[in-house]
Amino acid sequence: MTSDPSPAHVVIVGGGFAGLWAARALARVPVRITLLDRGNHHLFQPLLYQVATAGLSSPDIAAPLRHILRRQKNVTVLMGEAVAVDSAQKIVRLADGGTLGYDFLLLASGATHAYFGHDGWVAHAPGLKTLDDALLIRRRILSAFERAEASDDDAERKALLTFAIVGGGPTGVELAGTLGEIARHTLKHEFRRIDPQHARVLLLEAGPRVLSSFPESLSEKARLQLERLGVEVRTGSAVTNIDAGSVTLGDERIATHTVLWAAGVAASPLARSLGVPLDRAGRVPVEPDLSVPGQPRIFVAGDLATLQRENGKPVPGVAPAAKQMGNHVAAAIRARIAGRATKPFHYRDWGNLATIGRRAAIVDLGKLRFSGFLAWSFWLVAHIFFLIGFRNRVVVLLDWAVAYWTHQRNARIIVGRND
Amino acid sequence: MTSDPSPAHVVIVGGGFAGLWAARALARVPVRITLLDRGNHHLFQPLLYQVATAGLSSPDIAAPLRHILRRQKNVTVLMGEAVAVDSAQKIVRLADGGTLGYDFLLLASGATHAYFGHDGWVAHAPGLKTLDDALLIRRRILSAFERAEASDDDAERKALLTFAIVGGGPTGVELAGTLGEIARHTLKHEFRRIDPQHARVLLLEAGPRVLSSFPESLSEKARLQLERLGVEVRTGSAVTNIDAGSVTLGDERIATHTVLWAAGVAASPLARSLGVPLDRAGRVPVEPDLSVPGQPRIFVAGDLATLQRENGKPVPGVAPAAKQMGNHVAAAIRARIAGRATKPFHYRDWGNLATIGRRAAIVDLGKLRFSGFLAWSFWLVAHIFFLIGFRNRVVVLLDWAVAYWTHQRNARIIVGRND
Repeated sequence: MTSDPSPAHVVIVGGGFAGLWAARALARVPVRITLLDRGNHHLFQPLLYQVATAGLSSPDIAAPLRHILRRQKNVTVLMGEAVAVDSAQKIVRLADGGTLGYDFLLLASGATHAYFGHDGWVAHAPGLKTLDDALLIRRRILSAFERAEASDDDAERKALLTFAIVGGGPTGVELAGTLGEIARHTLKHEFRRIDPQHARVLLLEAGPRVLSSFPESLSEKARLQLERLGVEVRTGSAVTNIDAGSVTLGDERIATHTVLWAAGVAASPLARSLGVPLDRAGRVPVEPDLSVPGQPRIFVAGDLATLQRENGKPVPGVAPAAKQMGNHVAAAIRARIAGRATKPFHYRDWGNLATIGRRAAIVDLGKLRFSGFLAWSFWLVAHIFFLIGFRNRVVVLLDWAVAYWTHQRNARIIVGRND
Repeated sequence: MTSDPSPAHVVIVGGGFAGLWAARALARVPVRITLLDRGNHHLFQPLLYQVATAGLSSPDIAAPLRHILRRQKNVTVLMGEAVAVDSAQKIVRLADGGTLGYDFLLLASGATHAYFGHDGWVAHAPGLKTLDDALLIRRRILSAFERAEASDDDAERKALLTFAIVGGGPTGVELAGTLGEIARHTLKHEFRRIDPQHARVLLLEAGPRVLSSFPESLSEKARLQLERLGVEVRTGSAVTNIDAGSVTLGDERIATHTVLWAAGVAASPLARSLGVPLDRAGRVPVEPDLSVPGQPRIFVAGDLATLQRENGKPVPGVAPAAKQMGNHVAAAIRARIAGRATKPFHYRDWGNLATIGRRAAIVDLGKLRFSGFLAWSFWLVAHIFFLIGFRNRVVVLLDWAVAYWTHQRNARIIVGRND
């Protein structure tokens, strides 16, 4: 496409699964890559809830991007924030006032929380997308038990020992199941004035069932497993208000000091500057080759993109889809450079799995569906396998082995001021 | 002393070495103990610099106090902050407005940083006492390299790659040595625009030598080992100003964005409410049995206490001394309850050791003095041995083994907003 002797400059915004996989797939391609991320690390997001619930510590599930890519000499990693794309000038504008020129651009900056217009709920019900979010949630959960132990007021103590999770998707289910386990097992015997086993864990879902992306029979299995872990599952329960001391469901006001948000996801705001129509969640409806309509040099991948599959369903916002999209964008950029036509993206669906808590999970491999201990073992092996880095695999395995036998959680350390 | 059938209430303020060891030593004594701490964890402070320099993560060197003490049924652990002692009413006042009545009180709330009246320096030169401090310092160090890679300005880049550590005591030496190693080894090959090996690490000490609590010959060995790790050691260099972009030594202004404070230590302010004279650093000069003059029911131990040894030197502010003091206070409380006389505290000096960096340390066991690789191995074994918890020992050993062979540091994750 170009006869310019200097290699094409590929700018990748976001070092998540889509961005990192695209960068790696361009390792042997004669391009110059700049990978820009707001943080300094790639995050293994599927295990983020374990950091939030004190099972793992941050470095167990995160690795510095520049360390992962240290041997790939055509990549420069920069820590910084992209705020707008100027496709006429072919530049990305940065938060610090700088710019980055590009020949090809991949936007893979992912998703953030959506509170459906209730901005006042943000402070009272943190969501879980980054390590900072996870450490904030960990602090809130552990501090609630500490404050309950120190309190002399029965009502306050009860509110402190009530935990409400809003949203019955995978993250909400993981948080609720793990919280149930913490209250009933991990903290047993450690308090003198309260009994953590009396803690109430509520999972609030507006729709008719939890884990709605799974078949109904597995949703039902998940509900039963949650209840066995001590979680009260409330489906058909739309939250109408959240404040510092309560969550409200229509007429019912539940006193609680810990509300966690796992309900809404919105695309990161960078997409707005593209000047193309976005879907309701702020995602970019992409062409079949993952490029932006009318912008063949700009691609979008991961949670920021939306695309229909051949079966009419959207490509799901999960790690395997993001990796596949990243690889596909790398191939499309190679095709463009070589002057070939790009191919449409096909999502290869390996199946769907969700973990609930100790010995509890559900797995949907299309024809094969199972739940319980077997599903949990399957989930465990799959997640250890996909973790980046030998050290991380060993330490996570060790932490999980210790946790399994002792019910202990290694990372129960409160850091940071409490908001 | 008392014929009251209800057990005496012992309040311990601070869950560091002194407070935790006192609580444990009272396990079989018929008392009711309340252990109060601002955090929820006991911290293995000798390895805190490893968290600050991204070698270890927080849970590796910290464990929840209530987990450590879960089997000791006569202890209630409370997270909270003591702000004053009212010895007339025998109560401790808490920050949240509550009070705790006591029969015996142990103040072991430790030390904090002292900036010798330069309050303006606090924001620019963080000190290292808590996990929050360590995470802040880690963030500053790692962000400086990231910002240098992103910068187009030569002078700014140079300032970002200059690190100044104020104070040549054990903490300053550990930080400087480890920073030297990070710049020269850990980050090698990971940056494209800067060469981390050109980073400048300055250790600024106002006195004539580093590690002044050691014999002169070992101080000199430490200086040589620091220089081998690439650290510029500046003795006789009193800092006269610190601001956001520089540190000043008399006439010399050094441009730097990262200044770390390891110079001054002050006792925590709680001691002031005792109404007894304090020393210049705010510590409580205690009686030989570690009680407060004129207050036989109140004891002080650890860094908050000051006491002269038989040889005229003060008991040093190190972990072994704090543990010994904690044990001694437990014995003194038992003696008081039994109506026996208390005994004077004798510090048993096991020796003095300081680590400098990879393969570099000094050890002073009185007649036996050594440095280098042997001293470093000795330091390593001693620290692993004293770490609490099987899991911590295994993971720290694993991290150190990986770090030793690969020069990598596992916890290079930036979390938290940058101040």
